[in-house]
Amino acid sequence: MIVQSTAKKKGLVGIKDPIENLRHYQASLITVSFRQIDISKKPASFRTARAAGRIKLKRSTVDRIRKGLAEKGDPMSLAKISGIMAAKRTSELLPLCHPLKIESTTIETSLSPSGIEVTATVSATEKTGLEMEALTAATVALLNVWDVVKAYEKDSRGQYPTTRIQDVRVVRKVK
Amino acid sequence: MIVQSTAKKKGLVGIKDPIENLRHYQASLITVSFRQIDISKKPASFRTARAAGRIKLKRSTVDRIRKGLAEKGDPMSLAKISGIMAAKRTSELLPLCHPLKIESTTIETSLSPSGIEVTATVSATEKTGLEMEALTAATVALLNVWDVVKAYEKDSRGQYPTTRIQDVRVVRKVK
Amino acid sequence: MIVQSTAKKKGLVGIKDPIENLRHYQASLITVSFRQIDISKKPASFRTARAAGRIKLKRSTVDRIRKGLAEKGDPMSLAKISGIMAAKRTSELLPLCHPLKIESTTIETSLSPSGIEVTATVSATEKTGLEMEALTAATVALLNVWDVVKAYEKDSRGQYPTTRIQDVRVVRKVK
Amino acid sequence: MIVQSTAKKKGLVGIKDPIENLRHYQASLITVSFRQIDISKKPASFRTARAAGRIKLKRSTVDRIRKGLAEKGDPMSLAKISGIMAAKRTSELLPLCHPLKIESTTIETSLSPSGIEVTATVSATEKTGLEMEALTAATVALLNVWDVVKAYEKDSRGQYPTTRIQDVRVVRKVK
Amino acid sequence: MIVQSTAKKKGLVGIKDPIENLRHYQASLITVSFRQIDISKKPASFRTARAAGRIKLKRSTVDRIRKGLAEKGDPMSLAKISGIMAAKRTSELLPLCHPLKIESTTIETSLSPSGIEVTATVSATEKTGLEMEALTAATVALLNVWDVVKAYEKDSRGQYPTTRIQDVRVVRKVK
Amino acid sequence: MIVQSTAKKKGLVGIKDPIENLRHYQASLITVSFRQIDISKKPASFRTARAAGRIKLKRSTVDRIRKGLAEKGDPMSLAKISGIMAAKRTSELLPLCHPLKIESTTIETSLSPSGIEVTATVSATEKTGLEMEALTAATVALLNVWDVVKAYEKDSRGQYPTTRIQDVRVVRKVK
Repeated sequence: MIVQSTAKKKGLVGIKDPIENLRHYQASLITVSFRQIDISKKPASFRTARAAGRIKLKRSTVDRIRKGLAEKGDPMSLAKISGIMAAKRTSELLPLCHPLKIESTTIETSLSPSGIEVTATVSATEKTGLEMEALTAATVALLNVWDVVKAYEKDSRGQYPTTRIQDVRVVRKVK
Repeated sequence: MIVQSTAKKKGLVGIKDPIENLRHYQASLITVSFRQIDISKKPASFRTARAAGRIKLKRSTVDRIRKGLAEKGDPMSLAKISGIMAAKRTSELLPLCHPLKIESTTIETSLSPSGIEVTATVSATEKTGLEMEALTAATVALLNVWDVVKAYEKDSRGQYPTTRIQDVRVVRKVK
Repeated sequence: MIVQSTAKKKGLVGIKDPIENLRHYQASLITVSFRQIDISKKPASFRTARAAGRIKLKRSTVDRIRKGLAEKGDPMSLAKISGIMAAKRTSELLPLCHPLKIESTTIETSLSPSGIEVTATVSATEKTGLEMEALTAATVALLNVWDVVKAYEKDSRGQYPTTRIQDVRVVRKVK
Repeated sequence: MIVQSTAKKKGLVGIKDPIENLRHYQASLITVSFRQIDISKKPASFRTARAAGRIKLKRSTVDRIRKGLAEKGDPMSLAKISGIMAAKRTSELLPLCHPLKIESTTIETSLSPSGIEVTATVSATEKTGLEMEALTAATVALLNVWDVVKAYEKDSRGQYPTTRIQDVRVVRKVK
Repeated sequence: MIVQSTAKKKGLVGIKDPIENLRHYQASLITVSFRQIDISKKPASFRTARAAGRIKLKRSTVDRIRKGLAEKGDPMSLAKISGIMAAKRTSELLPLCHPLKIESTTIETSLSPSGIEVTATVSATEKTGLEMEALTAATVALLNVWDVVKAYEKDSRGQYPTTRIQDVRVVRKVK
Repeated sequence: MIVQSTAKKKGLVGIKDPIENLRHYQASLITVSFRQIDISKKPASFRTARAAGRIKLKRSTVDRIRKGLAEKGDPMSLAKISGIMAAKRTSELLPLCHPLKIESTTIETSLSPSGIEVTATVSATEKTGLEMEALTAATVALLNVWDVVKAYEKDSRGQYPTTRIQDVRVVRKVK
């Protein structure tokens, strides 16, 4: 107990174990052994992955979008471009991902009374799956929707009581 | 009806209106007027924003994380670094965001039996709010958790029946 | 008429059509369906593309370059490096471009009394053409020439009466 | 003469001077002293710059754009987003540019029978001018127009007889 | 002992402690608490930092550089540009660094019989020091020297018996 | 002599030769002909490269690391992630490098009383060697170690009397 709170106070990683003679193990304890999977021996094959997610918006914001009244621009158009771009940056955002040469990214959007659903489909002939690329594309597209309707989602105190990104998931992965 | 499906078939944007004499409006119709908010006249002030989200994981994956058995590395450590880095890239991922000089990003993670919750807090003295930076940090951190436990979340057909990113939200924004 | 100016005032995209019963089409109207061409089924082949362009400069600036008196550095050397680097960033600058693995970029420059001509040649074995890479390389090289001689091109009011980038074109594309 | 051609053959930089006893100067000869202007002592002030340029297109392509028939998406919408994004990347593309915090980028496009004109206006409170940012925004926006109408501009041999980026210029710079 | 080797075999981070009743501490044990220093409350002041390093090269490579015979280009010119660019990317390469607006980067190079010394000086008015920017600039400049003379440094088996980057250090830091 | 110092004063590149009638050669003199090696005709093969380097640290800093008391986070964990990420960015940092699709990067770290040794191993099936990628990974990993222990390495005047990056080298390259 005392140990834990001291650790917290000093910004330590892990515990400093109470048992003195374990102390010499600590150096290895605190190093996390991040590793990339080695894909060099795998064969390249055509792969595709589809991910989706949605953003919950206020009904009045949805109406505004439907009427083309989002001042910063149409969220669904922006979702498409930004999602396509984000797919290409996946290996920069995810340290352990391999750089892939994406051959097709499609972003579909659909507007419902409660928000916008985004689906991203990514394809390439590669040695590893594309689900992280599809998830990144969908997620960044949803963040862009948020950015573009920020002004309409904020309440009088500048907070976002309604806005949520939900259900970001892999719809289907095909190897 | 016919109009819609033709449009879809040709990959068109917008409708080709059935009323001939509206045709000359079409050029302006199809251009979306994306714009950045002009913040040049606003005063800079200290601002902070906190965003959070969670990733739903299989119970067995959570156990594995708890035991330090995630082969690619500890997801929570990776979430911290990747979230801090992502905050700095917000204006690259979100076309209409302004580049900000973030002065502090903190990523907190918490492991529960159903997954990992990530909270990102971003601060800076700037002319515009930091909620998109906090949301980007939290979201990319969650995507990194996914990436690092991919192997344990996939079922025998390579699909992800359980994994979901949920409830990405702004916890609090202070100007 | 009134519709148009209101739209403009509110920063709208497209018209709000005067015919009320078309209003339900508007949501689809305002979304631009950006798409990447799917190249996944195309065979890879050796491709090369050459693009060129020129920057018009003041005679006195050209003399200065010729004498090695450009204080920020020689514009043609900078054009070479920056053009090679820009070719590699094409898919970041052009959202709908695919990431390619460029195998050779050559930037040639030639100084004439009226300015500098830049030619960029890019090659790779890929599924899609390299003309956008060559154009991006040539254009960014020219922008770097401008940057490096800015001080000599400005008039007393800080304007650029002479400087122009002209004739950016694809010289030849070979598949 | 002989000197020049030998130099060329060996891919040398500079001449190998014919006068033997100048040889010890050569090391300094071939190093280009690139330098960034030191702006640290300059006061920050509100600055804005506007740049423009145009892309010449086939009449049939312009008609297609006007009708919303560009399959990859509307070029003018894409020009807006990509131009805003490019302004933010200026200091990555131009090695000697300083990183600036752009506070507003506006991209305007106008379609004429002979092509598209793009105007980029960039503002910030900074220690150095924004003309390179405006020029970069306009130029990359024009490259994106090209990318999105590529299919319609190519002739039967895959060449671009009409397409040209022209008159990229600083319209006005205000400090 | 057994514990350690098992851990290693499974690619674990840290030990699985032999004492069963410590097992519930393990989750916190393996998470590294990366954090950015919060600089938001610090005053901005003019700061400068100088870093240096050198690359040891074969005498024959130095001769070649001196004669302008490095086929890929002059290493010292390339060192200057690439160092200036690298300084601007420091906060992308170093996750815990804050983004800074560098106002001046100067790269100096000096050729000696045993290699090239690179010195990088970086200045800005910021809330935190610039030594990491200067170190990054110097180091990347040295890597570029290596890249450009690779062909001359390799022995017959493709190895680099001589080439070394040495003594990368902070020469002086001034706040 | 006079020539040299004048050149220096004016920030010139190269000499202004004392022999008047060589003056017309100067334009070509001052342009450095940077070039990328053309790898398009080479066959792709499996390649791997290992590079290493070390950072000299104060004994007290090493003790602190061993005890898990580095406040910004464990340097060896950070070295791993940042090194993996840096390998992927090599072609952005080194202008003349080709973009490669790295298939595996492994960063190993080892703590000794005098500092940390970092080894980076990079593999891919490519047309050119990976030594620059391995060197970049090792070097950036070492810079991250420095960043994370900065506070402990500085003396009372804010200088770094001990810290040095040393012996960055290619351990082995295999084609």
